[in-house]
Amino acid sequence: MTGSEREKMAAGEWYRCLDPELDQLRDRARKAVHQHNTLTPDERGSLAPALRELFAAAAADAFVEAPFHCSYGINIELGARVYLNAGCTILDSAPVVIGTDTMLGPGVHIYCAEHHKDPALRREGLETARPVTIGENVWIGGGAIILAGVTIGDGAIVGSGAVVTRDVAPGTTVVGNPARVR
Amino acid sequence: MTGSEREKMAAGEWYRCLDPELDQLRDRARKAVHQHNTLTPDERGSLAPALRELFAAAAADAFVEAPFHCSYGINIELGARVYLNAGCTILDSAPVVIGTDTMLGPGVHIYCAEHHKDPALRREGLETARPVTIGENVWIGGGAIILAGVTIGDGAIVGSGAVVTRDVAPGTTVVGNPARVR
Amino acid sequence: MTGSEREKMAAGEWYRCLDPELDQLRDRARKAVHQHNTLTPDERGSLAPALRELFAAAAADAFVEAPFHCSYGINIELGARVYLNAGCTILDSAPVVIGTDTMLGPGVHIYCAEHHKDPALRREGLETARPVTIGENVWIGGGAIILAGVTIGDGAIVGSGAVVTRDVAPGTTVVGNPARVR
Repeated sequence: MTGSEREKMAAGEWYRCLDPELDQLRDRARKAVHQHNTLTPDERGSLAPALRELFAAAAADAFVEAPFHCSYGINIELGARVYLNAGCTILDSAPVVIGTDTMLGPGVHIYCAEHHKDPALRREGLETARPVTIGENVWIGGGAIILAGVTIGDGAIVGSGAVVTRDVAPGTTVVGNPARVR
Repeated sequence: MTGSEREKMAAGEWYRCLDPELDQLRDRARKAVHQHNTLTPDERGSLAPALRELFAAAAADAFVEAPFHCSYGINIELGARVYLNAGCTILDSAPVVIGTDTMLGPGVHIYCAEHHKDPALRREGLETARPVTIGENVWIGGGAIILAGVTIGDGAIVGSGAVVTRDVAPGTTVVGNPARVR
Repeated sequence: MTGSEREKMAAGEWYRCLDPELDQLRDRARKAVHQHNTLTPDERGSLAPALRELFAAAAADAFVEAPFHCSYGINIELGARVYLNAGCTILDSAPVVIGTDTMLGPGVHIYCAEHHKDPALRREGLETARPVTIGENVWIGGGAIILAGVTIGDGAIVGSGAVVTRDVAPGTTVVGNPARVR
């Protein structure tokens, strides 16, 4: 539990979100998101320049519709032909890797961060972050929510509006709130 | 299975979304959506000019709050006094007809398109589209999701956050994920 | 049932939403929301000037990410260090009070207004409004929906994607659609 808040966040330890270094990173992401969401479709193309620069990696043919939102951006990796429909939101306090050919419907949310469940510690601003890993050729239906630490296997299907709290095995379909194998 | 991808989409057959003609249609919709979402409220009025022109039909007194999103727009018909609250999203790969006096809460999503459930065929970009028909005087609660092929009868109520996977009979109320008659 | 529609709305009685005075109030809110959602992050700061002026009250250190949406704004009170992540939507036809240190995830929706369940009366535009009260140090997960009349106690947790139809006792955790104590 030594080191900067950013280092603790990256190490999966409890950290405080209200921190000058993390504030600055979130502010950079806000500006990139604002660019993506206000440029005309022609100017924006498949991914606004500021977001392309911000992301850890994005294939040239990955496509992100507007509006889009992310909290840091620096932890997002988009594989070849990844498609994010309008309104997707990624709280990438930890790595979010999305495999080739995977498609997210409109309004899919991915959350890597969790606040502390103990009210007293939550009030101190403590949170923790776990990666989300989505395989290749996954179809995530619109409005689905993927929670911290979840891995979704290749070829899986997540139903529209599902709330995914646990790993999804390759090739399986999950639906509902909480999401269960159908 | 002959004809253009657009013709196959309109016929309810499997089609490929990545197609120059469909790309062009989606790009036109992106521009109209961008206009609706960036104009000031006074300039936008009840429906931005570019969306009014794009939609198959929209009553003069239909009202669409910003932001709004649609994928094609050309398949959307809004009856008299239809009201769409902020953040509604319509993937209108097939006709979406919304009857007079029907009200959609904020963030209601309507999806006509479905990807192929077979991973190999999904990877080839195959999808299919079915119409969504919403009757008159229907109240769809905020955050509800209406899936492809669904018909909702006159006077029905869809609860907030419901995921509607099957037809809803006139005058009935459905809630939950998946939505069931209450 | 005498008095203006605005007075009936404030009194918790049935009122008609389509009313010149209420139209004007909603139009003012649309303009403030548009300012918040189009200013650059530096210009917007923690809350755009037009929204700060519109809200019933907002602590200097309350923070509202963009985009944000509200229907009236004049009924919203945000306590110290309240944080609303991107895409939150508040239909504040009645008071919405959010206590100190409470955090809303992305896309949380709060609805004070309900249309009439009787189709004939709904068609006449009748609706009613009830307050939503959220205590201190509450964590509301992303994509959750809070319905009219709900009170959420201090230190509670609302799971991501939960649809909250009843009061939540202090310190409890609710999840699911409809939300139940876990």
